[in-house]
Amino acid sequence: MNQSDINDARSIIRDKLHRTPTVSASALGDMTGVQLFLKCEQFQKTGSFKPRGALNKLAHLSQVELDRGLVSASAGNHAQGLAFAARAFGARATIVMPHDAPQAKIDAVRGYGGAIVFAESVNTMFDKMRELEQEHGYTVAHPFDDPYVIAGQGTVGMEIYEDVPDVEYVFVPIGGGGLISGIATALKLNNPRIKIIGVESTAGGAYYASVRAGKNTRVICSETIAGGIVCPMIGENNYPLMQQYVDDVVKVNDDELKHTIRLLLERCKMMVEGAGAAATAAVLSNKYALPKDARVVTLLSGGNVDLARLQEWIQ
Amino acid sequence: MNQSDINDARSIIRDKLHRTPTVSASALGDMTGVQLFLKCEQFQKTGSFKPRGALNKLAHLSQVELDRGLVSASAGNHAQGLAFAARAFGARATIVMPHDAPQAKIDAVRGYGGAIVFAESVNTMFDKMRELEQEHGYTVAHPFDDPYVIAGQGTVGMEIYEDVPDVEYVFVPIGGGGLISGIATALKLNNPRIKIIGVESTAGGAYYASVRAGKNTRVICSETIAGGIVCPMIGENNYPLMQQYVDDVVKVNDDELKHTIRLLLERCKMMVEGAGAAATAAVLSNKYALPKDARVVTLLSGGNVDLARLQEWIQ
Repeated sequence: MNQSDINDARSIIRDKLHRTPTVSASALGDMTGVQLFLKCEQFQKTGSFKPRGALNKLAHLSQVELDRGLVSASAGNHAQGLAFAARAFGARATIVMPHDAPQAKIDAVRGYGGAIVFAESVNTMFDKMRELEQEHGYTVAHPFDDPYVIAGQGTVGMEIYEDVPDVEYVFVPIGGGGLISGIATALKLNNPRIKIIGVESTAGGAYYASVRAGKNTRVICSETIAGGIVCPMIGENNYPLMQQYVDDVVKVNDDELKHTIRLLLERCKMMVEGAGAAATAAVLSNKYALPKDARVVTLLSGGNVDLARLQEWIQ
Repeated sequence: MNQSDINDARSIIRDKLHRTPTVSASALGDMTGVQLFLKCEQFQKTGSFKPRGALNKLAHLSQVELDRGLVSASAGNHAQGLAFAARAFGARATIVMPHDAPQAKIDAVRGYGGAIVFAESVNTMFDKMRELEQEHGYTVAHPFDDPYVIAGQGTVGMEIYEDVPDVEYVFVPIGGGGLISGIATALKLNNPRIKIIGVESTAGGAYYASVRAGKNTRVICSETIAGGIVCPMIGENNYPLMQQYVDDVVKVNDDELKHTIRLLLERCKMMVEGAGAAATAAVLSNKYALPKDARVVTLLSGGNVDLARLQEWIQ
């Protein structure tokens, strides 16, 4: 992965996606004594960062590969990102989703023309994806374990670097590692002194487990409101980049996520999903010791949440 | 009011406030066949556009006027904007607010150090403001009827013009006319072909009444979720600018506002208050006949809402 891979991705997505804003959030930053900025990928098309990687992947497939139809597995945001990208390339996409995925995500995938196959949980959906690949000859468009997906997500890092050039710390949620491996690579290539902190849910945490074990390790995931980042493993393409570029990893629980979702609504007027709040929750819950007045960017990765669920969380 | 007044205001607010983003909202635009952009003043400091005008006003007061203390009347957003601006200038501010103002707005005013005097309703709060002016010798910092406030709000228009230079229609909520008179002046000075459409609540509507009567006319306001734009009169400084620069005025009701608030959350991941949804509600409810594919900006004026009230609206 080098700068030209990320630059290529940027030229591919330029006319198809939003250049999302990075906004300062002094009310929240003051709560923990830092200068806080929010990179707003919940405002991205499809409501998350995911179409960046999906578009870049599809742009590098042959017509034959596209014509076979695409298959993937996703808790919901990559499902939408891929369905959106497939429509742009005139390809069919079938996505395995956990049966309890938010209705908003299911509806959106179908709205973009994607076909859905339900799996029992995130723990089994990748096996189901491989079954469909074998059975139908589909082309896999993996949600994170793919160099083109990583380069696509890396475009977020370039935008952060442009918007807050003197950033010192960047907090990024970790699911399978697609987003953080791209962002960390993009930022460290430009300034190796920027610290990259990964954030997982206490309901999962394959990278935390892998760091402790000293090798890429699978975990079993449990229930959480942060469905978007609960993933049983880190990708083979992602893990070495994370070892090289990610400085630390911390975990947040559902109560910390709900508190942050509420604060982001009340103080910042923004709606995020559970996973989308994780990076900011890590800062607000002091999971990582930051120097006073540090310049910190947190990644709001997505905002796809059923309003009925949101209402429960913010009671 | 000319370009240099607005340019001056811009230089005054530059280091103190956010340059808010204008974002495209194709999902919402597609619903009515237009190219829709949202100017996001709910992301402004204090959660609304109001500190723009308040800071510009206070910058043009003498030290003697500031030292007398400031007084104003506001349903809540100017109250916050003025308290914020007064703190920046080291001045005291007393604001008359309706007794049923949202708790979030009351708390925020006090958080900025503002003193609150409650009035029975928006219909009586301006009289109470004049009483306090007489009694204590306070300097009035009017929420809308003031050239410096108008020029300050006009900075929003300059930003819209920079972000969407080929904009054809701009929808702006009307309370007392401060925001729309500033925005309309700023835009028409740059391109007289841009249409400016004002939006009022069916619970109020002094400009609609004034246009029908052919003269500036007071109205009695009733209950609405759009408390931020319910105002019994248009200001004397605002009315002639609106006659000159505002092309039409339409009204929206609470059901249309709630529907729009829900869509802005679901599709755009943004939280706005009732008044903040008015301009977008007018477009989504087809209150004004727009040509197909017209380039339209709607002003999201504020996002200060109690989450408990929000939950009722989005059931």
